Amino acid sequence: MPPTITAFENSPDRGRGQARDMRVRWALEEVGQPYDVRLVSFEAMKAPAHLALHPFGQIPTYEDGDLALFESGAILLHIAERHGGLLPKDANARSRAIAWMFAALSTVEPPIVELTMAMLFERDESWYAERLPMLRDRVRTRLGELSRRLGDAEWLDGAFSAGDLMMVTVLRRLNTSGVLDEYLEIAAYVARGEARPAFRRAFDAQLAVFTAASRS
Amino acid sequence: MPPTITAFENSPDRGRGQARDMRVRWALEEVGQPYDVRLVSFEAMKAPAHLALHPFGQIPTYEDGDLALFESGAILLHIAERHGGLLPKDANARSRAIAWMFAALSTVEPPIVELTMAMLFERDESWYAERLPMLRDRVRTRLGELSRRLGDAEWLDGAFSAGDLMMVTVLRRLNTSGVLDEYLEIAAYVARGEARPAFRRAFDAQLAVFTAASRS
Repeated sequence: MPPTITAFENSPDRGRGQARDMRVRWALEEVGQPYDVRLVSFEAMKAPAHLALHPFGQIPTYEDGDLALFESGAILLHIAERHGGLLPKDANARSRAIAWMFAALSTVEPPIVELTMAMLFERDESWYAERLPMLRDRVRTRLGELSRRLGDAEWLDGAFSAGDLMMVTVLRRLNTSGVLDEYLEIAAYVARGEARPAFRRAFDAQLAVFTAASRS
Repeated sequence: MPPTITAFENSPDRGRGQARDMRVRWALEEVGQPYDVRLVSFEAMKAPAHLALHPFGQIPTYEDGDLALFESGAILLHIAERHGGLLPKDANARSRAIAWMFAALSTVEPPIVELTMAMLFERDESWYAERLPMLRDRVRTRLGELSRRLGDAEWLDGAFSAGDLMMVTVLRRLNTSGVLDEYLEIAAYVARGEARPAFRRAFDAQLAVFTAASRS
Protein backbone atom coordinates (compact mmCIF):
# COMPACT_ATOMS: atom_id res chain seq x y z
CA MET A 1 0.00 0.00 0.00
CA PRO A 2 1.44 3.39 -0.92
CA PRO A 3 1.28 6.17 1.72
CA THR A 4 -1.77 8.46 1.73
CA ILE A 5 -1.53 12.21 2.05
CA THR A 6 -4.32 14.74 2.51
CA ALA A 7 -4.82 17.88 0.43
CA PHE A 8 -7.46 20.61 0.04
CA GLU A 9 -10.60 19.53 -1.80
CA ASN A 10 -10.80 23.12 -3.00
CA SER A 11 -7.43 24.81 -2.65
CA PRO A 12 -7.55 28.55 -1.89
CA ASP A 13 -4.55 29.06 -4.23
CA ARG A 14 -6.58 27.75 -7.22
CA GLY A 15 -4.02 24.98 -7.79
CA ARG A 16 -0.94 27.17 -8.06
CA GLY A 17 1.10 24.85 -5.84
CA GLN A 18 1.18 27.09 -2.79
CA ALA A 19 -0.71 24.76 -0.45
CA ARG A 20 1.54 22.77 1.85
CA ASP A 21 0.74 19.38 0.29
CA MET A 22 2.92 20.55 -2.62
CA ARG A 23 6.04 20.04 -0.46
CA VAL A 24 5.12 16.46 0.26
CA ARG A 25 4.04 15.66 -3.31
CA TRP A 26 7.30 17.11 -4.63
CA ALA A 27 9.39 15.10 -2.15
CA LEU A 28 7.57 11.87 -3.04
CA GLU A 29 8.12 12.57 -6.73
CA GLU A 30 11.83 13.27 -6.16
CA VAL A 31 12.32 9.88 -4.50
CA GLY A 32 9.98 8.00 -6.87
CA GLN A 33 7.48 6.93 -4.21
CA PRO A 34 3.87 6.57 -5.48
CA TYR A 35 1.19 7.93 -3.13
CA ASP A 36 -2.55 8.23 -2.71
CA VAL A 37 -4.35 11.50 -1.99
CA ARG A 38 -7.43 11.97 0.14
CA LEU A 39 -9.10 15.33 -0.42
CA VAL A 40 -10.63 17.12 2.56
CA SER A 41 -13.09 20.01 2.67
CA PHE A 42 -12.58 22.95 5.05
CA GLU A 43 -15.43 21.56 7.14
CA ALA A 44 -13.93 18.06 7.32
CA MET A 45 -10.54 19.52 8.33
CA LYS A 46 -12.04 20.68 11.63
CA ALA A 47 -14.02 17.44 12.27
CA PRO A 48 -12.87 14.81 14.82
CA ALA A 49 -11.65 12.27 12.25
CA HIS A 50 -9.18 14.73 10.73
CA LEU A 51 -8.26 16.32 14.07
CA ALA A 52 -7.20 12.84 15.24
CA LEU A 53 -4.63 12.93 12.43
CA HIS A 54 -3.78 16.63 12.65
CA PRO A 55 -4.32 18.37 16.00
CA PHE A 56 -4.39 21.79 14.31
CA GLY A 57 -6.89 20.78 11.61
CA GLN A 58 -4.67 21.47 8.63
CA ILE A 59 -3.27 19.68 5.59
CA PRO A 60 -1.12 17.82 4.72
CA THR A 61 -1.11 14.64 6.76
CA TYR A 62 0.77 11.46 5.91
CA GLU A 63 -0.37 7.93 6.67
CA ASP A 64 1.80 4.90 6.03
CA GLY A 65 0.78 1.65 7.71
CA ASP A 66 0.73 2.28 11.47
CA LEU A 67 2.27 5.73 11.18
CA ALA A 68 0.28 8.96 11.01
CA LEU A 69 2.22 12.22 10.72
CA PHE A 70 1.37 15.90 10.40
CA GLU A 71 3.44 19.02 9.61
CA SER A 72 4.93 19.29 6.14
CA GLY A 73 8.43 19.70 7.58
CA ALA A 74 8.20 16.49 9.58
CA ILE A 75 6.72 14.58 6.63
CA LEU A 76 9.43 15.84 4.29
CA LEU A 77 12.15 14.84 6.76
CA HIS A 78 10.54 11.42 7.26
CA ILE A 79 10.52 10.81 3.49
CA ALA A 80 14.07 12.13 3.10
CA GLU A 81 15.35 9.81 5.85
CA ARG A 82 13.81 6.73 4.24
CA HIS A 83 14.71 7.26 0.59
CA GLY A 84 17.84 8.41 -1.21
CA GLY A 85 18.13 11.72 -3.02
CA LEU A 86 16.98 14.39 -0.57
CA LEU A 87 19.72 14.36 2.08
CA PRO A 88 23.51 14.14 1.62
CA LYS A 89 25.22 10.96 2.88
CA ASP A 90 27.96 12.90 4.73
CA ALA A 91 26.74 13.43 8.31
CA ASN A 92 27.71 17.11 8.57
CA ALA A 93 26.26 17.98 5.16
CA ARG A 94 23.08 16.12 6.16
CA SER A 95 22.73 18.22 9.34
CA ARG A 96 23.27 21.40 7.33
CA ALA A 97 20.60 20.42 4.78
CA ILE A 98 18.18 19.88 7.68
CA ALA A 99 19.19 23.31 9.05
CA TRP A 100 18.01 24.85 5.76
CA MET A 101 14.67 23.09 6.13
CA PHE A 102 14.27 24.68 9.56
CA ALA A 103 15.50 28.05 8.27
CA ALA A 104 12.87 27.96 5.52
CA LEU A 105 10.09 27.19 8.00
CA SER A 106 11.15 29.19 11.07
CA THR A 107 13.03 32.18 9.68
CA VAL A 108 11.94 32.79 6.08
CA GLU A 109 8.31 31.63 6.03
CA PRO A 110 6.81 33.57 8.99
CA PRO A 111 7.28 37.09 7.53
CA ILE A 112 6.13 35.78 4.13
CA VAL A 113 2.95 34.33 5.62
CA GLU A 114 2.41 37.55 7.58
CA LEU A 115 2.64 39.59 4.36
CA THR A 116 0.53 37.30 2.18
CA MET A 117 -2.13 36.78 4.87
CA ALA A 118 -2.41 40.55 5.39
CA MET A 119 -2.79 40.94 1.60
CA LEU A 120 -5.63 38.41 1.71
CA PHE A 121 -7.43 39.17 4.95
CA GLU A 122 -6.55 42.69 6.14
CA ARG A 123 -6.99 44.56 2.88
CA ASP A 124 -10.13 46.31 4.13
CA GLU A 125 -8.74 47.17 7.57
CA SER A 126 -7.96 50.78 8.43
CA TRP A 127 -4.30 49.95 9.07
CA TYR A 128 -3.62 48.01 5.87
CA ALA A 129 -1.97 50.71 3.75
CA GLU A 130 0.11 51.99 6.65
CA ARG A 131 1.38 48.54 7.71
CA LEU A 132 2.07 47.06 4.27
CA PRO A 133 5.49 48.71 3.72
CA MET A 134 6.66 47.38 7.10
CA LEU A 135 5.58 43.84 6.20
CA ARG A 136 7.27 44.05 2.81
CA ASP A 137 10.47 45.30 4.47
CA ARG A 138 10.49 42.39 6.90
CA VAL A 139 10.36 40.00 3.95
CA ARG A 140 13.05 41.99 2.13
CA THR A 141 15.38 41.66 5.13
CA ARG A 142 15.22 37.87 4.92
CA LEU A 143 15.48 37.78 1.13
CA GLY A 144 18.51 40.07 1.25
CA GLU A 145 20.23 37.76 3.74
CA LEU A 146 19.29 34.68 1.76
CA SER A 147 20.47 36.25 -1.47
CA ARG A 148 23.87 37.15 0.05
CA ARG A 149 24.36 33.56 1.19
CA LEU A 150 23.15 32.00 -2.06
CA GLY A 151 25.24 34.24 -4.34
CA ASP A 152 25.51 32.56 -7.71
CA ALA A 153 25.38 29.02 -6.32
CA GLU A 154 22.87 26.62 -7.82
CA TRP A 155 21.54 25.35 -4.47
CA LEU A 156 21.93 26.42 -0.84
CA ASP A 157 24.64 23.95 0.21
CA GLY A 158 26.07 21.69 -2.46
CA ALA A 159 23.64 19.37 -4.26
CA PHE A 160 19.85 19.86 -4.28
CA SER A 161 18.42 18.71 -0.93
CA ALA A 162 15.29 18.71 1.22
CA GLY A 163 16.49 22.13 2.40
CA ASP A 164 16.18 23.54 -1.12
CA LEU A 165 12.86 21.81 -1.67
CA MET A 166 11.42 23.43 1.44
CA MET A 167 12.98 26.83 0.73
CA VAL A 168 11.68 26.95 -2.85
CA THR A 169 8.12 26.13 -1.75
CA VAL A 170 8.30 28.81 0.97
CA LEU A 171 9.60 31.43 -1.48
CA ARG A 172 6.89 30.55 -4.03
CA ARG A 173 4.31 31.89 -1.58
CA LEU A 174 5.57 35.35 -2.60
CA ASN A 175 4.43 34.82 -6.19
CA THR A 176 1.58 37.34 -6.02
CA SER A 177 3.47 39.93 -3.93
CA GLY A 178 5.95 41.22 -6.52
CA VAL A 179 8.75 41.20 -3.90
CA LEU A 180 10.51 38.19 -5.40
CA ASP A 181 11.23 40.15 -8.61
CA GLU A 182 13.55 42.45 -6.65
CA TYR A 183 15.99 39.58 -5.99
CA LEU A 184 17.23 38.16 -9.27
CA GLU A 185 19.37 35.40 -7.74
CA ILE A 186 16.47 34.19 -5.64
CA ALA A 187 13.99 34.34 -8.50
CA ALA A 188 16.43 32.26 -10.59
CA TYR A 189 16.86 29.81 -7.67
CA VAL A 190 13.09 29.35 -7.42
CA ALA A 191 12.89 28.87 -11.19
CA ARG A 192 15.57 26.15 -10.98
CA GLY A 193 13.45 24.34 -8.41
CA GLU A 194 10.34 24.69 -10.51
CA ALA A 195 12.16 23.30 -13.55
CA ARG A 196 12.87 19.96 -11.86
CA PRO A 197 10.79 17.16 -13.43
CA ALA A 198 9.63 16.01 -9.97
CA PHE A 199 8.34 19.52 -9.22
CA ARG A 200 6.43 19.59 -12.51
CA ARG A 201 4.79 16.21 -11.85
CA ALA A 202 3.77 17.27 -8.34
CA PHE A 203 2.51 20.63 -9.57
CA ASP A 204 0.45 19.06 -12.35
CA ALA A 205 -1.07 16.54 -9.92
CA GLN A 206 -2.26 19.18 -7.48
CA LEU A 207 -3.45 21.48 -10.29
CA ALA A 208 -5.52 18.62 -11.69
CA VAL A 209 -7.39 18.42 -8.37
CA PHE A 210 -8.38 22.06 -8.60
CA THR A 211 -9.28 21.84 -12.29
CA ALA A 212 -11.48 18.79 -11.70
CA ALA A 213 -13.17 20.47 -8.72
CA SER A 214 -13.96 23.63 -10.66
CA ARG A 215 -15.35 21.60 -13.58
CA SER A 216 -17.80 19.66 -11.40
CA MET B 1 36.48 19.80 23.00
CA PRO B 2 32.85 20.41 23.93
CA PRO B 3 30.58 22.09 21.34
CA THR B 4 30.29 25.88 21.37
CA ILE B 5 27.00 27.70 21.10
CA THR B 6 26.36 31.42 20.69
CA ALA B 7 24.00 33.51 22.82
CA PHE B 8 23.11 37.18 23.25
CA GLU B 9 25.72 39.22 25.10
CA ASN B 10 22.81 41.32 26.35
CA SER B 11 19.57 39.40 26.00
CA PRO B 12 16.46 41.52 25.30
CA ASP B 13 14.44 39.23 27.61
CA ARG B 14 16.64 40.17 30.59
CA GLY B 15 17.63 36.53 31.13
CA ARG B 16 14.13 35.10 31.40
CA GLY B 17 14.98 32.16 29.15
CA GLN B 18 13.03 33.33 26.11
CA ALA B 19 15.98 33.74 23.76
CA ARG B 20 16.43 30.78 21.42
CA ASP B 21 19.75 29.63 22.93
CA MET B 22 17.61 28.37 25.85
CA ARG B 23 16.35 25.50 23.67
CA VAL B 24 19.87 24.36 22.90
CA ARG B 25 21.14 24.80 26.47
CA TRP B 26 18.17 22.79 27.80
CA ALA B 27 18.73 19.99 25.27
CA LEU B 28 22.44 19.79 26.12
CA GLU B 29 21.58 19.65 29.83
CA GLU B 30 18.99 16.89 29.24
CA VAL B 31 21.58 14.69 27.53
CA GLY B 32 24.43 15.63 29.87
CA GLN B 33 26.66 17.19 27.23
CA PRO B 34 28.91 20.03 28.51
CA TYR B 35 29.17 23.03 26.22
CA ASP B 36 30.93 26.35 25.81
CA VAL B 37 29.15 29.63 25.16
CA ARG B 38 30.39 32.51 23.04
CA LEU B 39 28.47 35.72 23.66
CA VAL B 40 27.75 38.02 20.71
CA SER B 41 26.63 41.63 20.65
CA PHE B 42 23.87 42.83 18.31
CA GLU B 43 26.54 44.50 16.22
CA ALA B 44 28.68 41.36 16.00
CA MET B 45 25.64 39.28 14.97
CA LYS B 46 25.45 41.23 11.70
CA ALA B 47 29.23 41.17 11.03
CA PRO B 48 30.83 38.83 8.45
CA ALA B 49 32.32 36.39 10.99
CA HIS B 50 28.92 35.62 12.51
CA LEU B 51 27.07 35.73 9.18
CA ALA B 52 29.41 33.00 7.97
CA LEU B 53 27.98 30.83 10.76
CA HIS B 54 24.40 32.10 10.58
CA PRO B 55 23.21 33.54 7.24
CA PHE B 56 20.38 35.42 8.98
CA GLY B 57 22.58 36.97 11.69
CA GLN B 58 20.83 35.41 14.66
CA ILE B 59 21.62 33.23 17.67
CA PRO B 60 22.04 30.39 18.50
CA THR B 61 24.69 28.72 16.42
CA TYR B 62 26.37 25.41 17.21
CA GLU B 63 29.96 24.48 16.42
CA ASP B 64 31.34 21.02 17.01
CA GLY B 65 34.63 20.16 15.29
CA ASP B 66 34.09 20.57 11.54
CA LEU B 67 30.35 21.12 11.87
CA ALA B 68 28.71 24.55 12.10
CA LEU B 69 24.92 24.66 12.41
CA PHE B 70 22.28 27.35 12.78
CA GLU B 71 18.53 27.27 13.59
CA SER B 72 17.54 26.12 17.07
CA GLY B 73 15.30 23.38 15.60
CA ALA B 74 18.12 21.90 13.57
CA ILE B 75 20.54 22.08 16.49
CA LEU B 76 18.04 20.44 18.85
CA LEU B 77 17.41 17.64 16.34
CA HIS B 78 21.15 17.17 15.80
CA ILE B 79 21.71 16.81 19.57
CA ALA B 80 18.68 14.51 19.96
CA GLU B 81 19.94 12.22 17.17
CA ARG B 82 23.37 11.85 18.74
CA HIS B 83 22.47 11.33 22.40
CA GLY B 84 19.82 9.27 24.19
CA GLY B 85 16.88 10.79 26.04
CA LEU B 86 15.24 13.23 23.64
CA LEU B 87 13.76 10.95 20.96
CA PRO B 88 11.92 7.61 21.37
CA LYS B 89 13.67 4.48 20.07
CA ASP B 90 10.55 3.24 18.23
CA ALA B 91 10.74 4.60 14.65
CA ASN B 92 7.11 5.77 14.44
CA ALA B 93 7.19 7.42 17.87
CA ARG B 94 10.46 9.09 16.87
CA SER B 95 8.87 10.57 13.73
CA ARG B 96 5.89 11.80 15.78
CA ALA B 97 8.17 13.49 18.33
CA ILE B 98 9.90 15.28 15.44
CA ALA B 99 6.45 16.29 14.11
CA TRP B 100 5.80 18.05 17.43
CA MET B 101 9.10 19.94 17.05
CA PHE B 102 7.96 21.18 13.65
CA ALA B 103 4.45 21.94 14.97
CA ALA B 104 5.97 24.07 17.74
CA LEU B 105 8.10 26.02 15.27
CA SER B 106 5.81 26.26 12.21
CA THR B 107 2.29 26.27 13.63
CA VAL B 108 2.39 27.46 17.24
CA GLU B 109 5.31 29.89 17.30
CA PRO B 110 4.46 32.24 14.38
CA PRO B 111 1.25 33.72 15.88
CA ILE B 112 2.99 33.94 19.27
CA VAL B 113 5.92 35.85 17.78
CA GLU B 114 3.49 38.08 15.88
CA LEU B 115 1.67 38.94 19.12
CA THR B 116 4.73 39.45 21.28
CA MET B 117 6.60 41.45 18.61
CA ALA B 118 3.57 43.72 18.14
CA MET B 119 3.46 44.21 21.93
CA LEU B 120 7.13 45.23 21.83
CA PHE B 121 7.44 47.21 18.60
CA GLU B 122 3.99 48.39 17.44
CA ARG B 123 2.65 49.71 20.72
CA ASP B 124 2.87 53.32 19.51
CA GLU B 125 1.37 52.66 16.09
CA SER B 126 -2.10 53.93 15.25
CA TRP B 127 -3.37 50.40 14.60
CA TYR B 128 -2.07 48.77 17.77
CA ALA B 129 -5.23 48.80 19.91
CA GLU B 130 -7.43 47.77 17.02
CA ARG B 131 -5.21 44.87 15.89
CA LEU B 132 -4.32 43.44 19.31
CA PRO B 133 -7.55 41.43 19.85
CA MET B 134 -7.08 39.77 16.44
CA LEU B 135 -3.51 38.78 17.31
CA ARG B 136 -4.57 37.40 20.69
CA ASP B 137 -7.36 35.40 19.03
CA ARG B 138 -4.92 33.86 16.54
CA VAL B 139 -2.83 32.64 19.48
CA ARG B 140 -5.95 31.42 21.29
CA THR B 141 -6.94 29.32 18.27
CA ARG B 142 -3.65 27.42 18.44
CA LEU B 143 -3.70 27.10 22.24
CA GLY B 144 -7.28 25.76 22.12
CA GLU B 145 -6.26 23.11 19.58
CA LEU B 146 -3.14 22.21 21.53
CA SER B 147 -5.09 22.02 24.77
CA ARG B 148 -7.67 19.64 23.24
CA ARG B 149 -4.93 17.33 22.06
CA LEU B 150 -2.91 17.47 25.29
CA GLY B 151 -5.93 16.89 27.57
CA ASP B 152 -4.62 15.72 30.94
CA ALA B 153 -1.59 13.95 29.50
CA GLU B 154 1.79 14.74 30.98
CA TRP B 155 3.56 15.22 27.63
CA LEU B 156 2.42 15.53 24.01
CA ASP B 157 3.03 11.93 22.92
CA GLY B 158 4.19 9.45 25.56
CA ALA B 159 7.47 10.25 27.33
CA PHE B 160 9.10 13.70 27.38
CA SER B 161 10.80 14.34 24.04
CA ALA B 162 12.48 16.98 21.90
CA GLY B 163 8.93 17.84 20.76
CA ASP B 164 7.95 18.81 24.30
CA LEU B 165 11.21 20.68 24.85
CA MET B 166 10.58 22.80 21.76
CA MET B 167 6.87 23.31 22.50
CA VAL B 168 7.51 24.43 26.10
CA THR B 169 10.11 26.99 25.03
CA VAL B 170 7.73 28.31 22.34
CA LEU B 171 4.84 28.61 24.81
CA ARG B 172 7.05 30.36 27.37
CA ARG B 173 7.30 33.31 24.95
CA LEU B 174 3.72 34.10 26.01
CA ASN B 175 4.79 34.73 29.60
CA THR B 176 4.20 38.47 29.49
CA SER B 177 0.98 38.33 27.42
CA GLY B 178 -1.42 36.87 30.00
CA VAL B 179 -2.93 34.54 27.35
CA LEU B 180 -1.34 31.42 28.82
CA ASP B 181 -3.34 31.82 32.04
CA GLU B 182 -6.55 31.12 30.08
CA TYR B 183 -5.43 27.54 29.38
CA LEU B 184 -4.87 25.69 32.63
CA GLU B 185 -3.71 22.42 31.05
CA ILE B 186 -1.15 24.23 28.95
CA ALA B 187 0.07 26.37 31.83
CA ALA B 188 0.53 23.17 33.86
CA TYR B 189 2.34 21.54 30.93
CA VAL B 190 4.75 24.46 30.69
CA ALA B 191 5.29 24.32 34.45
CA ARG B 192 6.15 20.60 34.19
CA GLY B 193 8.78 21.45 31.60
CA GLU B 194 10.18 24.24 33.74
CA ALA B 195 10.40 21.90 36.75
CA ARG B 196 12.83 19.54 35.03
CA PRO B 197 16.31 19.77 36.57
CA ALA B 198 17.88 20.18 33.10
CA PHE B 199 15.61 23.14 32.41
CA ARG B 200 16.61 24.76 35.72
CA ARG B 201 20.32 24.33 35.02
CA ALA B 202 19.94 25.81 31.52
CA PHE B 203 17.80 28.68 32.81
CA ASP B 204 20.26 29.52 35.58
CA ALA B 205 23.18 29.47 33.13
CA GLN B 206 21.55 31.93 30.72
CA LEU B 207 20.29 34.14 33.56
CA ALA B 208 23.83 34.32 34.95
CA VAL B 209 24.99 35.84 31.65
CA PHE B 210 22.44 38.62 31.94
CA THR B 211 23.14 39.23 35.62
CA ALA B 212 26.88 39.44 34.99
CA ALA B 213 26.35 41.82 32.05
CA SER B 214 24.13 44.16 34.02
CA ARG B 215 26.63 44.20 36.91
CA SER B 216 29.52 45.24 34.70
